[in-house]
Amino acid sequence: MQSVSVIGLGAMGTALARELLDNGYRLTVWNRTADKAARLVEAGATLAASPSEAIRASDVTITCIRSHGDTRALLGAEPAALSGKTIIELSTGESAEANSLMDWIHARGADCLIGMISVFPKDIGSADSAILVVGREETWARCSEILTTLGGASARIGEDPIALAAIYASLVLPRQGFMFGMIYGAILCEKAGISMKDYVEVLPLTIRIVHDYFDLFAATVPDGNFADPPASLGVYHAAFEDVLGTCRALGAPDELPRLLRDLLQRGMDAGLGDQQVTALTRLLAKLDVS
Amino acid sequence: MQSVSVIGLGAMGTALARELLDNGYRLTVWNRTADKAARLVEAGATLAASPSEAIRASDVTITCIRSHGDTRALLGAEPAALSGKTIIELSTGESAEANSLMDWIHARGADCLIGMISVFPKDIGSADSAILVVGREETWARCSEILTTLGGASARIGEDPIALAAIYASLVLPRQGFMFGMIYGAILCEKAGISMKDYVEVLPLTIRIVHDYFDLFAATVPDGNFADPPASLGVYHAAFEDVLGTCRALGAPDELPRLLRDLLQRGMDAGLGDQQVTALTRLLAKLDVS
Repeated sequence: MQSVSVIGLGAMGTALARELLDNGYRLTVWNRTADKAARLVEAGATLAASPSEAIRASDVTITCIRSHGDTRALLGAEPAALSGKTIIELSTGESAEANSLMDWIHARGADCLIGMISVFPKDIGSADSAILVVGREETWARCSEILTTLGGASARIGEDPIALAAIYASLVLPRQGFMFGMIYGAILCEKAGISMKDYVEVLPLTIRIVHDYFDLFAATVPDGNFADPPASLGVYHAAFEDVLGTCRALGAPDELPRLLRDLLQRGMDAGLGDQQVTALTRLLAKLDVS
Repeated sequence: MQSVSVIGLGAMGTALARELLDNGYRLTVWNRTADKAARLVEAGATLAASPSEAIRASDVTITCIRSHGDTRALLGAEPAALSGKTIIELSTGESAEANSLMDWIHARGADCLIGMISVFPKDIGSADSAILVVGREETWARCSEILTTLGGASARIGEDPIALAAIYASLVLPRQGFMFGMIYGAILCEKAGISMKDYVEVLPLTIRIVHDYFDLFAATVPDGNFADPPASLGVYHAAFEDVLGTCRALGAPDELPRLLRDLLQRGMDAGLGDQQVTALTRLLAKLDVS
């Protein structure tokens, strides 16, 4: 039975610890306030008296507290405990901070994966949940079983924390684009006398098309084949001219649609009007739109 | 057995006609090139010799051609055929054009719904597909059975074509926000050495969260209750500062994340930092961000 320690028993840390227990791992836990560990201890976990005791109890320790900076402060209290151990750091933070934490851990003779959890605590343990990590390939090989237990779709995406920051940004942007699209949509609906109840009723129609857009993206971007679109960049451009006309007619704010129209205009100007809209992945990397 | 005519047998018009036939409607069809009607005629439809013959054959005629302007030209060839009839216009076009078409049809003693089809032809007839229409309530009452046959979630959203334009824009914006989020994400991934194949593999993680964002939107915006968020506007703002830092570190274009950060900044400045991010629906309607 493999042993794992978990430091930090917030909502996420508790979900991780519970999943490990349920999958037969020998679990040691530590939390700043020990009462949060009570139900896990009842279920078979061992409560450590200090972070370093938790680290000494297992080859692999998962840290899931507030930030990379807090993790470093916590590990720094007794760095000798780290020697020969592996830390899977799942607190949040910037890539510069992650870089410096990773170097610091390596310098103390320990291995390290730094990861990002892309799901809510309720989804920990499911086959399509993921913890994406960066770190050395051999560290991943030793820890992949633990991480795929916690999220079946977990994966290593390179060695450098900047890759983690990039993948974080590249997952946040689409869903936040959707969120802000709803926010601008809500304003347009209200100005046109459409109730928010009615808007919420039709929004699932557009979520359905998000899945189609993903399929289009997956079918065109990896292969770089942007020809013969069912709906061309030019069609999208015309649609956004209509959307801007609607904003004007209703006196609604238009920052988001205007940016998207301007980006499509760049595609038109570059002669991509009859290509897939995803051809912009190539063009925008080279352009300064601001 | 109710009779319906369909004018325009492109991919969408054919799907509509087929669904009506399959549901026991007596169907008359017309298309500019008659050969597109062959399989429908085999299946029991009647081919009209002209648009006006199609209109005379049924109380309700669906027009699904290129644009509102084309529909008007087509109906204008023999306007006397319109008297007492109902036209369901499902061609695409701007709301100004739709307005003028609607007035023109009413002036010829006919009723009219102008609609937008929010699904692909393959999804016509399914329970959660929708044709959203504007027009008089009594016209909707007479046509709702036909329209819910074609899309179970079909609905009337008012009388004025501007409402149709608003709902169109408010459905396009979220999914296009998602699309452009993927486009900016792709550029970040490439600059960080993450392959497009790997990016495509993790994108479903963020589609899952789109559904959660919709739930959040539905739970907060109609009731206007933006208090006690699980993740506050301030958390989103901090996340976007990180995303912008990642763009800078990788030399990636940042127009989209910068706009979203600026919008969140407005929320912070207005004291909404501890509210739901959806509180921006109220704030942005009053602000000029440009």
